[in-house]
This record gives sequence, structure tokens and C-alpha cells, in this order.
Amino acid sequence: MSTRETVDFLLYRWLAVEGLAARPRFAEHGRETFDAVLDLCERLAAEQFAPANRIADTEEPWFDGERVHLPASSHAAAEAYVASGMLAAAQDTAMGGMQLPCVVEMAAQAFFSKAGIGVGGGGMLTSGNANLLMAHGTPLQREVFAKNEFSGRFFGTMCLSEPQAGSSLSDIVTRAVPDGAGHADDPLGPRYRLRGNKMWISNGDHELAENIIHLVLAKIPDADGRLVPGTRGISLFIVPKKLVDTDGRLTGERNDVALAGLNHKLGYRGIPNTLLNFGEGRHPVRAADGGGLDGRGAGAIGYLVGEPGQGLRCMFHMMNEARIAVGLGATMLGLAGYEASLDYARTRTQGRPVGPAGKDPTQPPVALIRHADIRRMLLAQKSWCEGALALCLYCARLVDEQHTGEPAAAAEAALLLEMLTPIAKSWPSEWCLEANSLAIQVHGGYGYTRDFPVEQYWRDNRLNMIHEGTHGIQALDLLGRKVVMDGGRGYAAWAARVNAAIERAIARPGWAREANELAGALKALGHATRAAWATGQPEEALANATPYLQAFGHVTLAWVWLEVALAAEDALAAADGAADADRGRLAAARYFFRYELPRIGAWLGPVESREPLCREMDEAWF
Amino acid sequence: MSTRETVDFLLYRWLAVEGLAARPRFAEHGRETFDAVLDLCERLAAEQFAPANRIADTEEPWFDGERVHLPASSHAAAEAYVASGMLAAAQDTAMGGMQLPCVVEMAAQAFFSKAGIGVGGGGMLTSGNANLLMAHGTPLQREVFAKNEFSGRFFGTMCLSEPQAGSSLSDIVTRAVPDGAGHADDPLGPRYRLRGNKMWISNGDHELAENIIHLVLAKIPDADGRLVPGTRGISLFIVPKKLVDTDGRLTGERNDVALAGLNHKLGYRGIPNTLLNFGEGRHPVRAADGGGLDGRGAGAIGYLVGEPGQGLRCMFHMMNEARIAVGLGATMLGLAGYEASLDYARTRTQGRPVGPAGKDPTQPPVALIRHADIRRMLLAQKSWCEGALALCLYCARLVDEQHTGEPAAAAEAALLLEMLTPIAKSWPSEWCLEANSLAIQVHGGYGYTRDFPVEQYWRDNRLNMIHEGTHGIQALDLLGRKVVMDGGRGYAAWAARVNAAIERAIARPGWAREANELAGALKALGHATRAAWATGQPEEALANATPYLQAFGHVTLAWVWLEVALAAEDALAAADGAADADRGRLAAARYFFRYELPRIGAWLGPVESREPLCREMDEAWF
Repeated sequence: MSTRETVDFLLYRWLAVEGLAARPRFAEHGRETFDAVLDLCERLAAEQFAPANRIADTEEPWFDGERVHLPASSHAAAEAYVASGMLAAAQDTAMGGMQLPCVVEMAAQAFFSKAGIGVGGGGMLTSGNANLLMAHGTPLQREVFAKNEFSGRFFGTMCLSEPQAGSSLSDIVTRAVPDGAGHADDPLGPRYRLRGNKMWISNGDHELAENIIHLVLAKIPDADGRLVPGTRGISLFIVPKKLVDTDGRLTGERNDVALAGLNHKLGYRGIPNTLLNFGEGRHPVRAADGGGLDGRGAGAIGYLVGEPGQGLRCMFHMMNEARIAVGLGATMLGLAGYEASLDYARTRTQGRPVGPAGKDPTQPPVALIRHADIRRMLLAQKSWCEGALALCLYCARLVDEQHTGEPAAAAEAALLLEMLTPIAKSWPSEWCLEANSLAIQVHGGYGYTRDFPVEQYWRDNRLNMIHEGTHGIQALDLLGRKVVMDGGRGYAAWAARVNAAIERAIARPGWAREANELAGALKALGHATRAAWATGQPEEALANATPYLQAFGHVTLAWVWLEVALAAEDALAAADGAADADRGRLAAARYFFRYELPRIGAWLGPVESREPLCREMDEAWF
Repeated sequence: MSTRETVDFLLYRWLAVEGLAARPRFAEHGRETFDAVLDLCERLAAEQFAPANRIADTEEPWFDGERVHLPASSHAAAEAYVASGMLAAAQDTAMGGMQLPCVVEMAAQAFFSKAGIGVGGGGMLTSGNANLLMAHGTPLQREVFAKNEFSGRFFGTMCLSEPQAGSSLSDIVTRAVPDGAGHADDPLGPRYRLRGNKMWISNGDHELAENIIHLVLAKIPDADGRLVPGTRGISLFIVPKKLVDTDGRLTGERNDVALAGLNHKLGYRGIPNTLLNFGEGRHPVRAADGGGLDGRGAGAIGYLVGEPGQGLRCMFHMMNEARIAVGLGATMLGLAGYEASLDYARTRTQGRPVGPAGKDPTQPPVALIRHADIRRMLLAQKSWCEGALALCLYCARLVDEQHTGEPAAAAEAALLLEMLTPIAKSWPSEWCLEANSLAIQVHGGYGYTRDFPVEQYWRDNRLNMIHEGTHGIQALDLLGRKVVMDGGRGYAAWAARVNAAIERAIARPGWAREANELAGALKALGHATRAAWATGQPEEALANATPYLQAFGHVTLAWVWLEVALAAEDALAAADGAADADRGRLAAARYFFRYELPRIGAWLGPVESREPLCREMDEAWF
């Protein structure tokens, strides 16, 4: 089935998204407007992004010392994307937005990821940046920066990592010092001069938009000039590439932000990934009267967002949605590979099926899809990728609940999102990558060539276990924070939803076995969770946080598949839908229970025994 | 530990390879000569192959319409390799060889794979080609072709696949017809004219050697001009790129073999992978007197090897060794990534370890290797890759036993090789690829850039699950043929070795638990094997052949690790070895039992129940 068919089923048949139109914020909407947005994005993705995807891979961004060059097709895709209005799709109509529910917006945006994840300027970064300013910026910061990002006039970045500080943000050393006497009175916000190096900055330099708005984490030194250790010392700044006035017009001044180099990557090559030098004097700015860090204009001018020391809190405000978006991107790459390999398996002939009579070479060869092992590889991809899609859309629906639901429901949604975000980020990153590997395998030798798209999907997808918090970081977040927070309230809320699905399923003749298997898995997970923390020693519990994350992910997906299967059964019974597609969903759900859920035993074993092998391994023994 | 240290341990402490010198064929050898060969290959690999590895990746082979161009460093590496004499290392001294045991030869050659798997012309193909001629060629074919391949004057290829026939060799359509009246009397062998297209031919064209000797599978039409269906109709031919006389001198005639194109691959880019057109008249040859298929010299001249219709049997003569070599190549890529990520983890600092006091940001960051999750990723790599190395060397040692052992031992070795070859090919291809992915993960964002070697290892290694028989083909071979052959004698021989290790281990206080776990796993595997075939229906048994292959592989590796662990314990007790390295081996063995062996449950479930989900999945439901 097409991804669109799956999206429609999940939105309307499972998540009852039409019902959101009953809420005041979405009152202008309904199935018709949702479909129109999905149609638009699907069409634009096919017309503008898909043809640019391989070009973005082969014609990597390059830097001539002054400017970053991207292929013309990437420019065209970015323009078409901006023109679609999707940057502001979830915003208030007053801000030029459409007031779309998050779940519909994310579903629609996902088509761009599927067609060309490295094409078109990474709109998510720009809208995420602007969203953050909407939440934490001053009214003028919103007007000058956020509004121009939503319109696509400016693009945005998030500058967190430094060459020496990736996962460990507490170690950043970019400094921000007040910029001159009147620094506190700048209408754009308290004005600072920043100096430091930022690494892994996606879209850190390009000419896809009039300006680039960097959101930069930096530390304000104390009275003795020292940086406060840890994350408490981190503040957040708006650092435009080109300075603007209070009307958002470019002043003609280039800020002291210099591209130090482009990273040459395994995949995701359409997105220029940069090392940026802030404030090293490469572009002196406002040097008159001895301005800047050196009296000659050095220092990137930045405007404080929110309170000093609150930078990480502000940045993490958008983290749940950013992480769901990473998971959704991984999912769409997985689905792209699934569709490509399904198409190949239907058209390519090879060999003959195994049968009681053996293989009869006088018979013509059959389509690949006639072989059981090929079907296994297709069903595995379907089960992983459509399951991941369901999970990500479920999470996006929770975001809507958090923002527009009744207070109790909103609070529960927030709690569930805390639990599910590490899974929505990590699980698709791991398993949809595996799906891409199977998509190559279905193609045989052809899949290993660059004449087919699947090898690129695999390379592109490898990034997703790394950025926005590595797999290991997600695991520590889940077992070290989320599971234990608030006396385990998040875990309990999550388990209650799983149990509710089990109870519904156990009454159905066709799903009682799976319901019981899920109940057993939930029990085993609960037992392992308690055992991990039985000694109360974080180093004992967390040494096996990653296998725990994997097991938690598989139990979560089994629950999601059970819910989807029940919805598919209902659709089949109603006999008004696409029966083949529904039967496919039932098969994919069964596949997950037969082939996937049993994996949790191997992961939970070390968690439960607090296996000390890894943490006690002597460095000299490697 | 270095790979060399591990190789030495496995050869001398575990496989008792020094003892081979007591056999007549290896009488000139001993630890000293074995070490000298290992030293030589390790040094040449470091000096000539390692520096050429990234160049071979970035400067892909290209075709100017006449010639294929490779980087100068690849030419230099090939020359150094030829000069080392390793092409003939296992051959009789009378053939210019060293009469090295297979296990030492393969261990030594492996260093080239580790340093640059796509560099230097793929010597394995040339020596494999020549080995085949030694077994099936006439004395003059050996002298003219094989001997010049062993000396490196000529390089070789294996031409099996065609664009429409990859896994399914029975569908090849390359035709071979007798070449003129005197065709049967050619001293180089019965002379044919071939016409057809061969795909995926590694080293199909280049200028690394004076000539290229293609070994080509083709069908001789019957009296009505029809090709015999199936593999019984396949014959084998020597097709030199340039024709030679009976003294092996080039005659100056170019044969009608034309490069149709180079495949542009995900990895393994140093090896030109080609589509070759045989006999299409691009290079007419011996056109005088109306020669050739069209009377104008079209048709590639080829000399029959062995009997007509025996081509596949001849080709598969070398298959066990070729497949072990693929597994060993995958292993060495895994080890290369392990070493790179270990080095990175020891030098790169990031964050602070989890502890009772939490993370204290006033403390300096620690080396990555201090984090439990990083050690887990290193230990996983070590466990997979050193285990795979042990398995491959064990198999190579069996090849020596098969060729030089006492008759009963030789027969048992042959039987074990039949069982273990699909594992030696598939298991490293799957798990050392996974190791390469973890090597990227240990590097974080840096691992995703082309500034570090690990992304290339991952791309290179992805080929190994595809070529020389895909994963799915290995699985059918194991469960469909090897397990049931000869009333299960192969399975029984393999299980006897596993049981012998269990019995030795159960007596050791430190390994009784693992011995019992392995016994349980062996029992579960046996049960699933019987259940798979309980109905005697191949389509029911084989629908889950791949999970079976995975489970059989993990049980095999658990056995191998148990054996290695006992040997390491003995070495520790003798206190004359490298104690840290031995403790590392014990930890890697424990890791395998704690984290890996329990995976088999999830794989064996569908095998045991003959789960029909995949084979019954309706195509329309995808």
C-alpha cells in the first residue's frame, strides 16, 4: 500500500483526528482541509523533492571561501516549500499560519522527508527555531525573527554542540559578554558579544534565504570571568548572520559569524552541515568607538532570549517535537526503501519457489515476491516502518492533546510524551535503518549500486541514531529519568494505556493470543525495571540502559500494533475501506508478535540481573 | 589487543597450528616460517594497502571507453602484493609456491582485507581461479594459465552471474558453440566461441596485470540449438582477455570480450565491478577464412575446462574456500572498525560517568571508554569480530585437515566444512557489519563523516551479505541441504564437536553455567530442526530458513567462544602469555553468553512452529 493510504488510515481510522475539529483552535478545519494539506505536501514532495534527492547526494554542498553552493534543484525545492506555507502550518492564523493540528502537520511534512530528506533546507529547523522564540522570546523578537522565519524570508539553525562537547552540553565554552554600555537597552533584547566554535550545525550557511537566524547556547562569565560549570550556566542567544533592525530589515551589516568548514558526511548530504566560528573577528562588526571584544569589532552580536542561565530549558522546550520529527524522518526513509524494494520484488524475476517437487528449471522464473524469504524481508520492513509511523503519529497526536485537551487529558498526554519521546526518537532510527538494509538485500547486487535509491536511504538513515541525542543518551533519559520521575507516574500512565489495549484485544477471538503475549511482555518489562533499580545505584541500573531502551521500544511497538490491528479489524468489519490494506496491517501486526516481540527476552536478561560485565570491563583487556 | 595478537593466539594456542609441521606437506614449515609470512603480510598491508584504502574509495575506477583507470596507489599495492608471492602461498613448491597450510595462508591474507579490502586487485579471485584450474584443468591449462596467475603475470575472474540470473544460475543463457573444424584439437583445450553478458564481475577489466583470465560459465546448445534447462547444462570455459600461445606468451590478439560498463557501488569501490559482453563482435578475433560466430570474427574464444555439463561442479569445487574468504573479509572489516573505535574511545573525552553522586560538572570530562555504554559497544564488537575470526580460522584449519589429515579425520573435516561454510560466510557478514555500525556510533557525529575510516568500513562490509551467495541462499543451503544431507550426518558431526566442548567446560568451575546454557541452546536448535522438517514439506521448513541460519550461527559462535575461553584460561594458568589479552577473551566470551546467545529464542520460535505467515502473505496485502 502507499504511504498515503497508511497515513490516512492512521489519522482517521485509528487516531480519530477528524474529531480535533471540534476544538476551538481547529474549528476552521475538518477532513477536507486536512486532506488538502496532505495532498499538497505529497504532490510537492513528488514534484520538487524526489527529483532533487539523488542530485543533493552527488552534488554535495561546497564552499568557495565566501559562499556555500547547493544544486539548483535544492534551491527550487526550498522555494516551493516556502511557498507552500508549511513553515507556519501549525501557527496562529494571526502569525500567518493555518492553525493545523500537530499530528496533521507532521504527517504532511513527512512526505518531504520521504522524497528527499536532505533536500530543501530542512524546514523543521526553521519552524522549530521560530516556535522556540514564540515560547520564550519578547514580542519584538517574535515579530522580527520568528515571523520572518515562518514566512521563509529567514531560515533558522540550532547551535548547541561544540567540537569538544557533543553529548555533553555542560562542557560548552562559547562565551557571551555584554556588548558595551547600552547593551541592556537594545530593543531586540539584551545585547552580547559571543565568541566560540559550534560544530554539527545543520544549515549553518547557505543562500536559500535572505538571512540565517542562529539560536546559540553560550555561557555568560561570572564577575571573575569564569564560566559556570554544568548546564546551569548556559544561556540562549539569537545571533543573526546579517544584522537586522527592529522592522526586520537587513541593516547591511554582516555579523561576526564565519563558516570554518563543511562536514563531509556519509549521507544526508543535501543539508550543509557546518563548523561555525562565532566572534573570531573574521567579519568585524560595529567597530566604531572601539566596539567588540578586541576594540576592532570582533565578536558575534547576539540577543539574549529569556533569562540568563535558562538557555537549556528554553532549548529543550522544543525537544519532544524535534525528537519525534527525527523518528518520523527515519520512518519515512524506511518507508521509501520498503516501497522501492516492494516495487522491485514485484517486477524482477529470479528463480523458482521451493515446492514439494523441488525447483523445476523448465518452468519460467517467478517474481521475487513469490519467494517466502523475500516476503519475510518485505513483511519485516512493513512491520517496522508502518509501526514506527503509527508510533510517531500517536506521539504527535499527544502533542495536540497536551496543547488543546482538557486539563486532565493534557497532563496525561504530557506525561506520556515524556515516556514515549525517547522511543519515538530511537526506535525508528534503529529499525527503519535495519529496514533499509533489507531493502538493499531484496535488490541483491543491484541494491548495492548507486543506480537504485536504496543504498542512499540506508546511508541517510544512519544519521538518525546519532543526532538529537544518541541512542545511548535516549536510553539514559528513559531508564535514568523518565521511568523513575515523579515516583514512576509516567511509567504507570504508559502501562495503563498498554493494559487498556490488552483488555480490548483479549475479548477478540483473533487477538487473545497476542494480547496475552503483550501482557507477558509488559510483566517482564516491569519486573526488569524494578530489578534494574533494586539497589538504587544508578551505575548498576544504567549500565544496561540501551538494551532496556530496545526492550521498552519493542513492547511499545507491540502495543501500537495491537491497537492498529484492532482498528484494522473494525475497518474490515465495516467493509467500507480498503480490505487488502487492512489485511496487510493484520499480517504486519502478527509478524511483529511472531518475529519481533520475542526479542525482548535477550535484552531484558542483562537488565534484570544488573549484568556488570560491561561496566567492570577493564580498559586494558580490550 | 591488536588483531595480530588475536591471530597468534587462535593459531597457536587454540588451533595448535604448529603441529601441522609434522605432516609431510608442511615439513619445511614451523612457527618461524608461519610468523615470517604473517609479519610480511601485516607489514605490506600497513605500508601499501592502508594508505591506499580511502583513495580507492574516493577515486573510483573509471572507463575512458578503452581502458579502466585505477589510482596509482592501487597499482603499487597490487605490485607489492604480487611480489610477496602470496598468490601462490598454498601451492606446491614445484608451482612456485610455499606449501603453506590454508589456515596460515588465510590468516596472513586477511591483513590485506583489514587494511584495504578494495585495494590491490583482489588476489583471492586470481588464486581461486588458478586453484580451480589446478583441480580441473589439463596439464597445459595449468601450465599456461594457472602458473601465470600464481606468479601474478595474469589476474583472474569468475564469471557466473548474468543480468537476469544472479542467485539463479540455472537461468544463464551465455552460449558456447564449437569454434570451427579443428576445435577439438586445440592444445589449450576444446575451443569454443562464447556469446553472452556477464554481470557483477569483479576485476573484469583493469591494467594491473599483463592479461586477465576469465573463467566463464556457459551452456553448450544441444543438436537443435536449444540450451539445456537447469544447472546440468552448464559448462566451464577459460576465456583470456588476450589470447596466448602454448607457452603462455601473448599472441597479440585481443579476444572478443568487451567491457560494457562499470558498476557504481556503495562500497568496495577499489575493485572494478563490471558488466562484460562476451562475443558481441566488439573485438573480432581470428576472422580469417570466415571464422567466428558471424564469419567476421565475433565470438569470444574459450577453452573448455573439464567435461561438458560439469561447469557448476568445477566452479563449486572452490566454493567452500571462497565463502570462508568472504566471511574472513567481513571479519577483518569488523576488526578494523573495532580497532578504530577503540582508539577513539581511549583518546576522546566526553561527559562524566554515572555515579552515586550524579555527574559532577566541575570534574574534567573522562575518556569515552569510561562510560559503560561505550564499553558495551566495544565489547559487542570484540565479541562478534574476534568470534568470527575464530570461526573462519577454525574452518580454514578444517580445509587443511580435509587435504592432509588421516582419512577418517579428513572425511569428518569435509563433513564439518559442509555444515560450517554457510555460517562462516553469513555470520560475519551480518554481525561484523553490525559491529561497523557500532564503530560509527562510538565516534558519534564524527563517525558519520568521511574524516574517519569507520563509515567506509560499514559501506564496504554491506556487500558481504550479498555476493558469493546471499544470506537467503546460505540459509536454504544450510537448512535445505546441509542439515538433512546423508541422513543428518553433518549435523551430527557438528553437534558432536559442540558437545565435546560442553563436556570439557562443564568440569571447569568458571564455565559450567555457560556450558549448560550452550547445552540448552543445542537442544533447542535440535528440537527446532526436527520440527521444521516434521511434515517433510520443503516449503514449510524453508519459509523460516533465514531465522534458522541466524540461530544456528549464534549457537556455533557460542561453541567457538567456549572453546576459545577454555584455551584462554589455560593460557592464563600457564602464566606465560599476555594476561590482559586472555582476560579480554574471557570477557568477550561471557559477553556472548550473556547478551548474544539468548537471541536464539526469538529466531527459533517461527522455525519450530513452521510459522506460515510469510509464505502465505498475499501479494496484494503489502
